[in-house]
Amino acid sequence: MALVVMKFGGTSVADMDRIRNVAAHVKREYDAGNQVAVVVSAMAGRTNELVSFVNEASSAPDQREYDCVVSSGEQVTSGLLALCLQDCAVPARSWQGWQIPLKTDGAHAKARIVDVCGAQMKASLDQGEVAVIAGFQGIAPDGRISTLGRGGSDTSAVAIAAALGADLCDIYTDVDGVYTTDPRIVPKARRLSKVSYEEMLEMASLGAKVLQTRSVELAMTKNVRLAVRSSFDDPASMPAINLKQNSHIGTLVCSEDEIVEQQVVSGIAYAKDEAKVTLVAVADQPGVAAMVFGPLAQANINVDMIVQNVSADGATTDLTFTVAEADLSAALKVVEANKTTLQYKDLQGATDIVKVSIIGVGMRSHAGVAGDMFEALSQKGINVLAISTSEIKISILIDAAYQELAVRTLHSLFGLDQDSE
Amino acid sequence: MALVVMKFGGTSVADMDRIRNVAAHVKREYDAGNQVAVVVSAMAGRTNELVSFVNEASSAPDQREYDCVVSSGEQVTSGLLALCLQDCAVPARSWQGWQIPLKTDGAHAKARIVDVCGAQMKASLDQGEVAVIAGFQGIAPDGRISTLGRGGSDTSAVAIAAALGADLCDIYTDVDGVYTTDPRIVPKARRLSKVSYEEMLEMASLGAKVLQTRSVELAMTKNVRLAVRSSFDDPASMPAINLKQNSHIGTLVCSEDEIVEQQVVSGIAYAKDEAKVTLVAVADQPGVAAMVFGPLAQANINVDMIVQNVSADGATTDLTFTVAEADLSAALKVVEANKTTLQYKDLQGATDIVKVSIIGVGMRSHAGVAGDMFEALSQKGINVLAISTSEIKISILIDAAYQELAVRTLHSLFGLDQDSE
Repeated sequence: MALVVMKFGGTSVADMDRIRNVAAHVKREYDAGNQVAVVVSAMAGRTNELVSFVNEASSAPDQREYDCVVSSGEQVTSGLLALCLQDCAVPARSWQGWQIPLKTDGAHAKARIVDVCGAQMKASLDQGEVAVIAGFQGIAPDGRISTLGRGGSDTSAVAIAAALGADLCDIYTDVDGVYTTDPRIVPKARRLSKVSYEEMLEMASLGAKVLQTRSVELAMTKNVRLAVRSSFDDPASMPAINLKQNSHIGTLVCSEDEIVEQQVVSGIAYAKDEAKVTLVAVADQPGVAAMVFGPLAQANINVDMIVQNVSADGATTDLTFTVAEADLSAALKVVEANKTTLQYKDLQGATDIVKVSIIGVGMRSHAGVAGDMFEALSQKGINVLAISTSEIKISILIDAAYQELAVRTLHSLFGLDQDSE
Repeated sequence: MALVVMKFGGTSVADMDRIRNVAAHVKREYDAGNQVAVVVSAMAGRTNELVSFVNEASSAPDQREYDCVVSSGEQVTSGLLALCLQDCAVPARSWQGWQIPLKTDGAHAKARIVDVCGAQMKASLDQGEVAVIAGFQGIAPDGRISTLGRGGSDTSAVAIAAALGADLCDIYTDVDGVYTTDPRIVPKARRLSKVSYEEMLEMASLGAKVLQTRSVELAMTKNVRLAVRSSFDDPASMPAINLKQNSHIGTLVCSEDEIVEQQVVSGIAYAKDEAKVTLVAVADQPGVAAMVFGPLAQANINVDMIVQNVSADGATTDLTFTVAEADLSAALKVVEANKTTLQYKDLQGATDIVKVSIIGVGMRSHAGVAGDMFEALSQKGINVLAISTSEIKISILIDAAYQELAVRTLHSLFGLDQDSE
């Protein structure tokens, strides 16, 4: 017998038919003798509708009232799923964030989980009830409803899995796992059977939208085994979880130690929502970087990559850095405000760029990965504008026009194509 | 300065425009220096939509999950109204039933209020905040959300007014007060300036749909002054509440002592959802009534009026009684099941009848009201099938075809027509 947390997103509970389908997935696990806690999002579209009501009501909404209104969507689906389960002879009850209680800090609308009191819910599970939990919501220190920010239901699920000491946290979504890269760009993309927390974290933060970054961080910290799988599978044709067989469906996100045959590179991610800022002919002298990046940090603008060209004339140089696309105009304003001290000749902003990253814990022990990467890109005529690296990833900034070519080239280069398996 | 509870129903908060209109009504009272607690229903139609979800999810819904799902509508409007108020510079916060807490018994879906802890809410009012309360909902002893049954927001409002010691509980609705009878039938119907709790209670239970019976009962017990008024009035053109002037808008439901010039009859009510059952030629002997009404009581069927004709042959008689229309088929079945002991010749059920009632606390001290009533009806050729009376009302059962004629005749007879004011 296993204790399993199952999480279903908005498209999986979009209407009563889909909710009944979720009930069938849950019933399969319950009938196999597992203890089950289910975390649900609001019906697809409902949260957006509620947010638009809030924005219509107030130009600068009180985040506490935002939470009160927006959290109602998950309340509805938790009750409806409990009813569907009861209707197919599975004992079940709904739990709201304040009933568990799932305690958060006071940062309404983007609260962080402080503590999950799992005791009462565990007692209910031990009595044979399925727990159906309204995701995304908790209770703040002021006794009012809080929400965890968009996509927060993944984080709810992981926190509840940790609090209950669950054997597995199954994230059901509209794709059947984590792929080596976006299959829409690379048809030969392969589903990963296992991926480490560190890799998943890089993939999530670099543009792969399968899991929320915070939920992966929390899973890594609390050592919760996560699996990403599809809610669109036929519930009846799928086997129930069997921990003894050490098998799983979809992609398992787990500790590096569990992954026996580790590829050097596990996946290729890309992010299009980056923008590039270039200060042309800025003085090449100590202190300039501080004068640029200090004010940006004060304005809460994150700078990602930085390139400073070698000075041609020994007196001036070009300084390029990247920010999130949404921050571009703010970043340009901050730099312009310091024009007199920086004394650059020209200031340029551009969004026709893309960041492509290769990710793999195997890179730690393999030299030469970067060299292979640049060689292959150069052969295809792709110019690398900037580079940033960590222990398990290399990111490059390139012209947006080369995005697909770069991703496909690197996917083949590192042996990720399906045929080469 | 007054402490006032304002209650707005579903049509008054049907969309964002209507909610902003409610905010304007509240702002008027707040700006006049009053402390204000507002009780809101769900947006019109939303509760029905949620109930239909519940019925789709389960053929025999768990009432606790029903409450979880259905109470979400009020949560949304409470948050949205708080936001609209803040947006027009009125400090406000939302309160859910479990936050107040408004404690109920465990009869989910039709819970009764046990206790309202007003202290925390009063402290918030004293700090100058408007309290926006989700009506219809509370918290049951099991720590789960409960609801008060359809129309329960009126009862929420009265209970909160009692707990806060409010000076007035204004029920805003889609009519501008309580009328002497239904203006759709009698265009000369007059709005009552004041009506006593007892009279309002009879009117509500006899078919006038302005207020929920339970809310009037509670107001009478707790001595809460209720006013019924229209939310469709222009908020800006209405004066704020002024207790010193002892004036009010709409109809005030209050203690009999407050009503100086009491009419003998205050209003005419009618109810079409009645059905008549007749046992033809049943034995005219002791014990028959018990054999008929005992089993009906056991089957939870309320019998309203009873008529037993004088025996013509000294051996058999006709026995007629009325039940709610919805109970008719159940009542017929109960009687049929006892056919062998009752030995009636024929059993008849009919729904083409209507109950018309005259109501007035003045009837206590005026003899001859019944005589005048029957005389007037007889002159119009209206046959009275059954009669029931209480200290302050006389109800008659007549053929449905005569409904309008009877109501208009009695309305004129007792001086209620607008011209005669």
